[in-house]
Amino acid sequence: MNTNSGKVTLLSAGPGELDLLTLRAAKALAAADVVLLDDLANPEIVTLAPQARVIRVGKRGGCRSTPQAFIERLMRRYAQRGLHVVRVKGGEALLFGRAGEEIATLRDAGIPVEIVNGISSGFAAAAGLGISLTHRRHCHGVTFVTAHKEDHGEPDWAALAATRTTLAIYMGMRRIGSLATALLASLPADTPAAVVQWAGSVDERRLLTRLDRLAADATDAGFGSPAVILVGGAIGESVEPAWADGAVSGDEAAHACAA
Amino acid sequence: MNTNSGKVTLLSAGPGELDLLTLRAAKALAAADVVLLDDLANPEIVTLAPQARVIRVGKRGGCRSTPQAFIERLMRRYAQRGLHVVRVKGGEALLFGRAGEEIATLRDAGIPVEIVNGISSGFAAAAGLGISLTHRRHCHGVTFVTAHKEDHGEPDWAALAATRTTLAIYMGMRRIGSLATALLASLPADTPAAVVQWAGSVDERRLLTRLDRLAADATDAGFGSPAVILVGGAIGESVEPAWADGAVSGDEAAHACAA
Repeated sequence: MNTNSGKVTLLSAGPGELDLLTLRAAKALAAADVVLLDDLANPEIVTLAPQARVIRVGKRGGCRSTPQAFIERLMRRYAQRGLHVVRVKGGEALLFGRAGEEIATLRDAGIPVEIVNGISSGFAAAAGLGISLTHRRHCHGVTFVTAHKEDHGEPDWAALAATRTTLAIYMGMRRIGSLATALLASLPADTPAAVVQWAGSVDERRLLTRLDRLAADATDAGFGSPAVILVGGAIGESVEPAWADGAVSGDEAAHACAA
Repeated sequence: MNTNSGKVTLLSAGPGELDLLTLRAAKALAAADVVLLDDLANPEIVTLAPQARVIRVGKRGGCRSTPQAFIERLMRRYAQRGLHVVRVKGGEALLFGRAGEEIATLRDAGIPVEIVNGISSGFAAAAGLGISLTHRRHCHGVTFVTAHKEDHGEPDWAALAATRTTLAIYMGMRRIGSLATALLASLPADTPAAVVQWAGSVDERRLLTRLDRLAADATDAGFGSPAVILVGGAIGESVEPAWADGAVSGDEAAHACAA
């Protein structure tokens, strides 16, 4: 059992803009001794923890990465010295990422863990598009799924399509062509689809299209990671409202690319 | 087109505790002229909008309810008078509820809409249980689905089970028996399951059990709405950690009830 006052807060940094952090997250950052910073989180978040030692522990892309085991060792080490460690994770800590492993490691070491929820990029993407993810005219739910093979194996796209829920696909940009093809085996070609890159950040870009043009439009418009891909009837409620910035329609994207 | 400065903010109040609001939500409340308050939101949220006129517009339960059309009329009326209307919705505004209809109504009236994301109770429930919703040992995603027939029809439980995603079932307490039975046709009896009532509020209660005992345990322990039902292998990672309050295991619940 831990005999000092060290602890770890797994903190959801939300999708980017700092005012999308919760009040609880801001308070935890202000009290942090050490901040372990995920590279999907907005680096400006450290301004909310001016007193803390900041350690960058990104894992994106493969190279220049910090191994998961090393991150977990860092958390343990600092907490066991009695420090308040805030592990900042992009989006919502409990959706994808390795929160499960980190919680288990800390629990095994007798280190108290606090979890602070946040806004996942799929919700920020829906806000940017001006839509409910579960408009009752279209569906009874939404499925958040990762297309990242290494972490979770390939999803069963046919089974996911059969739910008729809105699909919010994370980490799918590298295989947008193959996943769209797989979904087209189960869903109509004109199923509304969207890509939102850097959702909920100042760099947000949105593409509104349909499933059969999803991959081509996203490629033509130069969309890449990190992005959320949204598929389903509810997405068709978006009209890219006048009060929003950052929208690219499929046609405009193609035009801009041809010019 | 709207010629004055009126607007509507669809504001996600999160699951209950006020510090789970985002910084952006707190700022919007502080600037509100009128607050339309959902009865699933924590009523203390009005302390963040001390200058605003507060109108309670709950719809829960059927009786004493405010019709949706009337809520939409109120939003339009106040915004068209040039006021900043903040429509407070429990949880995340873009997950269930009627955000889709409200956005369409306001758009048709030429009223600017801002959407402020928040924490949905399914994420707060996972935080209470100390688990990731998508532990990669178990699944590649999570499906949020409503069991509320009137709004969305009955979900296809077999199709949902076939995704092997974690299921986060909202508004399911009235039919917990029938939905558990339906899921048992597709999932093993010992599939981990949980109920979290008032997730993310000071009244949070948690029940950790398995699918074949879900309905009986929840009934025995007196769990009711509002609650999130969670089903899937990832839920089994919960060990009801020592640092959390409010836990009731299936056995304890049965014992407490028998006593």
